[in-house]
Amino acid sequence: MTATERWLLPAGVEEVLPPRAWRLDAMRRRLLDLYWSWGYDLMFPPFVEYLESLLTGNAHDLDLQTFKVMDQLSGRLLGIRADMTPQAARIDAHVINCQGPTRLCYMGTVLRARPEGVSTSRSPLQIGAELFGHRGEASDIEVVRLMLETLRVAGVEGLTLDLGHVGIYRNLAAQAGLEGEAERELFEPLRRKAVGEYHQALAELPLGEDHRAQLAALVELHGGDEVLAQARERLSDAGSEVEAALDRLETVAERVQACYPALSIHFDLAELHSYNYENGLVFGAFHPAHGQALARGGRYDGIGEAFGRARPATGFSADLKALMACVPDSNEGERPKGGVLAPAEEDAALEEAIAGLRAQGERVLRELPETEFEADGHGCDRRLVRRGGHWEVVALD
Amino acid sequence: MTATERWLLPAGVEEVLPPRAWRLDAMRRRLLDLYWSWGYDLMFPPFVEYLESLLTGNAHDLDLQTFKVMDQLSGRLLGIRADMTPQAARIDAHVINCQGPTRLCYMGTVLRARPEGVSTSRSPLQIGAELFGHRGEASDIEVVRLMLETLRVAGVEGLTLDLGHVGIYRNLAAQAGLEGEAERELFEPLRRKAVGEYHQALAELPLGEDHRAQLAALVELHGGDEVLAQARERLSDAGSEVEAALDRLETVAERVQACYPALSIHFDLAELHSYNYENGLVFGAFHPAHGQALARGGRYDGIGEAFGRARPATGFSADLKALMACVPDSNEGERPKGGVLAPAEEDAALEEAIAGLRAQGERVLRELPETEFEADGHGCDRRLVRRGGHWEVVALD
Repeated sequence: MTATERWLLPAGVEEVLPPRAWRLDAMRRRLLDLYWSWGYDLMFPPFVEYLESLLTGNAHDLDLQTFKVMDQLSGRLLGIRADMTPQAARIDAHVINCQGPTRLCYMGTVLRARPEGVSTSRSPLQIGAELFGHRGEASDIEVVRLMLETLRVAGVEGLTLDLGHVGIYRNLAAQAGLEGEAERELFEPLRRKAVGEYHQALAELPLGEDHRAQLAALVELHGGDEVLAQARERLSDAGSEVEAALDRLETVAERVQACYPALSIHFDLAELHSYNYENGLVFGAFHPAHGQALARGGRYDGIGEAFGRARPATGFSADLKALMACVPDSNEGERPKGGVLAPAEEDAALEEAIAGLRAQGERVLRELPETEFEADGHGCDRRLVRRGGHWEVVALD
Repeated sequence: MTATERWLLPAGVEEVLPPRAWRLDAMRRRLLDLYWSWGYDLMFPPFVEYLESLLTGNAHDLDLQTFKVMDQLSGRLLGIRADMTPQAARIDAHVINCQGPTRLCYMGTVLRARPEGVSTSRSPLQIGAELFGHRGEASDIEVVRLMLETLRVAGVEGLTLDLGHVGIYRNLAAQAGLEGEAERELFEPLRRKAVGEYHQALAELPLGEDHRAQLAALVELHGGDEVLAQARERLSDAGSEVEAALDRLETVAERVQACYPALSIHFDLAELHSYNYENGLVFGAFHPAHGQALARGGRYDGIGEAFGRARPATGFSADLKALMACVPDSNEGERPKGGVLAPAEEDAALEEAIAGLRAQGERVLRELPETEFEADGHGCDRRLVRRGGHWEVVALD
């Protein structure tokens, strides 16, 4: 192995270097301050857990995405987290264990065995928030708004909000009598938006014509406000649960639009998301510079059941590195430019001058003996020099 | 598997919950601000890398500590980082590639297959700083001082600083003609401070009496200032490199003591550290509440060689979670207490009042319809109420 091969990084794995790392850190602080101001409490879930704790419910996709390692201490299989949402559900259900609503937020690296799309990372810096314990539309609206605030605070502009409702597909499939393998054969192409395969799967399944027509309609029901009216017509026989899902989509869209009048909202009734745990309203924010959803989330009522306590739940997450890629470099919140170069010599007054400058928020770099600093002095624009008995900051030329 | 088994965490793996997570975040911010003010640049190295990139040089211990997973995309073995120092060396050598000194800092989770000691974490939140490109004592002193500042800013008090020099043992072993397997047989018990085993290994090796006596002396050379004088006497025939190592220990101790007059400094010439890459001055900070070194580091010149560019290097790291465990709970820098409870109702003036309070740095929790909040209102001490046509904040009773 040559030295060059030794420093190549695996596909989909990135490092963040200066000065971008400082920008990322500034964005991280602004977002955690935002979540704090909305009453979301920070938690750091573990990076590895026993595999069964990470994979709850029907989490086939999450299983494929999860790197596994053997625990030498217990002989059990550990999973490296690929998504922090199920961890938040575990912590809500078992550790915090509060009867009323619980609001949690988190930020940390997750690892994925396979990239989800061509341009996506396998090591996103996941940031997100989850609201447990409330079933109504108010929590959907709060979480969608907090996702949009996240993108606003991060400095991302020109977004489209996508809204869908996994309950519609699930309800139609259940009414059509689909379950188990047959249901999965239909779910899989729909999730991938493989419309041709989906129609073929529909044609091959033994379904009543009404059910087939309703399920076929789903992939056509995407677009602007008109979609909900079309859906009410084409799914008029689909029963009260589908109607309730359409009502919720309409209310959430109206209330979010009232807060963001300029936001472009798009409906997509065939949107199912990836990880298979969502079962209600789902949403995503799209940006022209990013192929996948830049942030997304949804309702996943009952996820805590595997931990002995089913709770209503809704939340969102995003990759902080992807957010940063959609923001112009001249973003606010960066560290101040410049700095002060200090000589290497030993002198008590010099030490005091340096400590004083640092305490005032200045960046002071110490020179090192017998070493030449690069011409630009590592971004320094001033220098500490001795004038008479004391030290003064002067411009660097 | 029962629900209870599903949420137990693997040994040595912790989660950080509210309100401790906010305290951890506050400490993280203060420390990154400190490193910035000293001119250290932040970087986020990748969480996984090809195994060969992570294990550089003679890193047998690091290999045992590194979890490995197969990369489905490349078919190559990946390692999950167990230590960020070698990653910093790779980034200095290859990515930043600056001729003069480079100062880097980092913070992130690392994973270890086995705990290093009984009470240590397998998933420390590693924080640290590294200084590349300078060989002299000035960089040792800077890094020791920055480690001590880290502990001061974190709020840890009552520390002891341990100083050692791996070069002394290595030089004596080389002079005694020890290499390969024989050298490792001696290194291993010394690293573990297994004095009996070390003496036995010494007795069994075919060594000259002078060399045996010098190597045997090492395990007795620990204590206060008197140790350096004793070492100069007992190792008086050991040559100029050992003498230079003792000189460096003396200078660094004097200069650090001048900055921290109350600090207790302890010398230990048998201290070798764990990961086997250090080859010069090594140091650690000990606290009565923590069995292992709370922070530690050392010089590891030439580590970048595996990446095609050997550079002098010195640095330190610590586990932020361990630091927090040594600090009283009433630490400064915590988020302000209290908060404002806002009703769930829809009202444009209410939205405006909430947004205004949040922009002022207040924490505002929205009530959710048909849900009872816990009696303590999630730490809220005030409430937004309608008075005439506008919204006012009043005390919560």
